[in-house]
Amino acid sequence: MSERAKRAIEECLLLATMTEEPGRTTRRFLTRPVHEVHRHLRSHMEGLGMSVRVDAVGNLRGLWKPAGACGKRLLLGSHIDTVPDAGAFDGVLGVVLALELVESASALRLPLELEVIAFSEEEGVRFGFPFIGSLAVAGRLDPSMFAQKDAEGTSIRQAIADFGLDPENLQDAVADENAIGFIELHIEQGPVLEAEGRNVAAVTSIVGQTRLDLKFTGHANHAGTTPMHLRHDSLAAAAEWIARVEAHALKTEGLVATVGKLEARPNAANVIAATAEFSLDIRHVRDTTRKTAVADLLHEAESIAQRRGLRLEWTQKMDEPSVPMDERLTAYMTEAIEAAGFPSRAMPSGAGHDAMIMAGRVPTAMLFLRSPGGLSHHPDESVREEDVEAALQVGEKFLQRLAAEVR
Amino acid sequence: MSERAKRAIEECLLLATMTEEPGRTTRRFLTRPVHEVHRHLRSHMEGLGMSVRVDAVGNLRGLWKPAGACGKRLLLGSHIDTVPDAGAFDGVLGVVLALELVESASALRLPLELEVIAFSEEEGVRFGFPFIGSLAVAGRLDPSMFAQKDAEGTSIRQAIADFGLDPENLQDAVADENAIGFIELHIEQGPVLEAEGRNVAAVTSIVGQTRLDLKFTGHANHAGTTPMHLRHDSLAAAAEWIARVEAHALKTEGLVATVGKLEARPNAANVIAATAEFSLDIRHVRDTTRKTAVADLLHEAESIAQRRGLRLEWTQKMDEPSVPMDERLTAYMTEAIEAAGFPSRAMPSGAGHDAMIMAGRVPTAMLFLRSPGGLSHHPDESVREEDVEAALQVGEKFLQRLAAEVR
Repeated sequence: MSERAKRAIEECLLLATMTEEPGRTTRRFLTRPVHEVHRHLRSHMEGLGMSVRVDAVGNLRGLWKPAGACGKRLLLGSHIDTVPDAGAFDGVLGVVLALELVESASALRLPLELEVIAFSEEEGVRFGFPFIGSLAVAGRLDPSMFAQKDAEGTSIRQAIADFGLDPENLQDAVADENAIGFIELHIEQGPVLEAEGRNVAAVTSIVGQTRLDLKFTGHANHAGTTPMHLRHDSLAAAAEWIARVEAHALKTEGLVATVGKLEARPNAANVIAATAEFSLDIRHVRDTTRKTAVADLLHEAESIAQRRGLRLEWTQKMDEPSVPMDERLTAYMTEAIEAAGFPSRAMPSGAGHDAMIMAGRVPTAMLFLRSPGGLSHHPDESVREEDVEAALQVGEKFLQRLAAEVR
Repeated sequence: MSERAKRAIEECLLLATMTEEPGRTTRRFLTRPVHEVHRHLRSHMEGLGMSVRVDAVGNLRGLWKPAGACGKRLLLGSHIDTVPDAGAFDGVLGVVLALELVESASALRLPLELEVIAFSEEEGVRFGFPFIGSLAVAGRLDPSMFAQKDAEGTSIRQAIADFGLDPENLQDAVADENAIGFIELHIEQGPVLEAEGRNVAAVTSIVGQTRLDLKFTGHANHAGTTPMHLRHDSLAAAAEWIARVEAHALKTEGLVATVGKLEARPNAANVIAATAEFSLDIRHVRDTTRKTAVADLLHEAESIAQRRGLRLEWTQKMDEPSVPMDERLTAYMTEAIEAAGFPSRAMPSGAGHDAMIMAGRVPTAMLFLRSPGGLSHHPDESVREEDVEAALQVGEKFLQRLAAEVR
């Protein structure tokens, strides 16, 4: 099989042992094990002949400048922070594969500068605020955010200083002027490629997302003495609405809509629920489709409340537009998939990624690798060797295509 | 208006000030304020010429023996324990009205012995075990239950001894051999009489009740990356089933079915629910109707689980048959309603009452008084003066009818 794919997987598994908690992988922004990861990746990068630095927010950056480079730089990478009790591949695999691609580019004598970025923060676990690493590189990190504190009361500013870095040096983190693009290789974290029997896919967009909190308020009455027609049951109302949400998403191509959270009160078997509070998470690649769905579902909630004599309250917690990947680079990625001998497939990403932030700064493309079982954010998260090899072949074709253009 | 109705309501409000917690009415089985209630009621009873005792489980019992009594005894009463933060009328009103009826019987020179029982325990709050008072009078209290402990580790046996009573003397609590019936006057604790604009109703039965705990188990997947058709969403499944439960009850005359409790896991807005655990409380006056509904709804849950690729588990927590009130005494009660000038109305009780336990020992009948707003187990629980007067008139007619029979 593929020696380099096997090697990449083993490197991810090794990095997963660098953790805040023995026995499981948890590695939040700039915690102690990040030093260990940096030491390991730095040595790997230096072994490839790259020059290495850590920027002001803790992104580890390795630059490979080939002899006779054209002065154009492609950025590659992903994040090295994790969720609590994480798997070994979310983020980290993208960094390790970027380094494999540096080796390929070197062997192919491509005249592109390659900068591999191991972003320090994407998950938002430590400070409840995601994408610290890529926001800094994209030049969009607001230093007023540095006052934000983690659960122990340490500010972002302090965490950066404690790690041995200078938070004032933020300008130093911004992507170089000669950067012509960013690419990210990442596990899909969903079941689509597995269901279709595919290795990889180009990502067309990061879907837009709305998140709402809703609440029905009715009356807590006795479950035995209150006839059905005299009830104001907020949990029955929520159930009716959840069924509408699901039906709406099932009939709308590409829409995903989820009620994942629900709290009923008083939440007793023999009392009709006075209140039900629940969430809606709804995503689509087209913002108009998403907004129409949200409006329709809110209208349905209003009419359910009215018919049942309940009060409806709702607040919008998030409203993020869809972020398209760069058309040209995505077309190169799709061509690269075919050139490597795989059926071409393009799909949106239902989750946020560093690529979403980087797309605001430089043309950006993204490649998904199949996720066995659709599993991610879980210790059983995995990746298949054949898919890693496929991604590397696609990455090489992509680099060759781009190099041909800038040569 | 009615002086005696006003007096009865004032007495209930006074008794509500005898509480474990200042500012709200909480009076559990044999707690300190029960002594105060006993002192007050004992003085009221003795003022009416009754002989008073407290039996082995703390029921306060006043016996009125008129001159020339026929040797037949009617039991009347309700409970004096309360839920936490209770209203003033649940239970207590039935004791106070029974004493008003002793006054009426005395004035009417009825030859019946009347024993008014203020049951010590009905709500099950202190020991998680309801009906201690009426079970003892019905001769059905198993002394092995005495080992059960409250939240502070005090056993029922100890609580009885601490109150100054002898728990061994249980036989002493059993209803006298010459008892020919039991009647309980109680607020409806539901909205039916108010919705129909009626003062009172005879109770035909205590409905039978099934309680189930159910659980769907699916998969916790990412709300963004998992297309609708690849989900195993246990909360969406629960919502579908709750809608079926409601529809089933709405189309079945007299059936009440409630999902009052629901817990989703992991209960996060951006994660598809892996599990949903929820309750079913279902009640009907006909046991076959209830059992058929339970079987149909479990069948629906099975088919929802199968279609969605989920696992269904369920356990039955309660299965209590319907308890009919005595036909003859209930007919007398209905006639008494008409004789007092009110439209006759008979209805089942959706909640349990001491009458349900007493019906196993002696012929039992029950009269409901309208509950404003259907409200009970709440400090705003109330009763209308005109309904209290109506209940007393009905009670008098009932006593006259019964006295005519035994005379």
